[in-house]
Amino acid sequence: MSLETQYDPDNIFAKITRGEMPSVKILETDNILAFMDVFPQSKGHCLVIHKNSQAVNFLDVDQEALSDLMTATQKVARAVNDGLKPDGIRILQFSGARAGQTVFHLHFHVLPVYEGVVVAAHASGKPADAESLEPIAAQIRSALT
Amino acid sequence: MSLETQYDPDNIFAKITRGEMPSVKILETDNILAFMDVFPQSKGHCLVIHKNSQAVNFLDVDQEALSDLMTATQKVARAVNDGLKPDGIRILQFSGARAGQTVFHLHFHVLPVYEGVVVAAHASGKPADAESLEPIAAQIRSALT
Repeated sequence: MSLETQYDPDNIFAKITRGEMPSVKILETDNILAFMDVFPQSKGHCLVIHKNSQAVNFLDVDQEALSDLMTATQKVARAVNDGLKPDGIRILQFSGARAGQTVFHLHFHVLPVYEGVVVAAHASGKPADAESLEPIAAQIRSALT
Repeated sequence: MSLETQYDPDNIFAKITRGEMPSVKILETDNILAFMDVFPQSKGHCLVIHKNSQAVNFLDVDQEALSDLMTATQKVARAVNDGLKPDGIRILQFSGARAGQTVFHLHFHVLPVYEGVVVAAHASGKPADAESLEPIAAQIRSALT
């Protein structure tokens, strides 16, 4: 088996980018969107995507889009740290279904971890509703610099 | 608790960079070093570091070093994919001891995953010896473009 390479323009993150699906947003620019993961593995778990790159995974993204993505991911991670005061932060990118990728539009996870709190399984359980995610997103947004 | 911020110039990756500790290298440039993780969680698990940045974690690295790091990490991930043909690849960065960080010199993990093979626990067990890592590193190096 090899990595998935076909970009589907109707994947859920493309729909979120086009406003055809809702999301709880943290940061949006011309190129970048950061929003809350609807299957949060911890409080403040969020995702960062490029809006105008059709990269499926980490291997096939071009340099400029990757640079934009990492700058934004760092900005969001700093805001998560400042806004939520976790005990650690994991930056995760899964390339390929066997690595845990479930949406085939390149995305980086910002996953805060907290002392004594078990990180939930990836993409499992029932999705969180916007009402529960919005106050956490607000804390992160307020810490964006 | 907050993230560790103090850079120790005698951390193990700094020693590897200075040649005071051995490593099985994949790629080395003026700024970048990629080498095999001595506690491999899977076949081909390797690390990418910046040689000239004293960033402890993802939050405190400057833009230029981050860009260099991600370009190199992508290059190494592509070589891991081409050289070892895993079924997926995870890119991981742990910021803070509570997130799993064990060496406080910013590093990115390139972790290939294989169908039917369980990924080992992080930084556990006995270290692998250079003899067992070298042939895998050679496969990755041969796929560098």
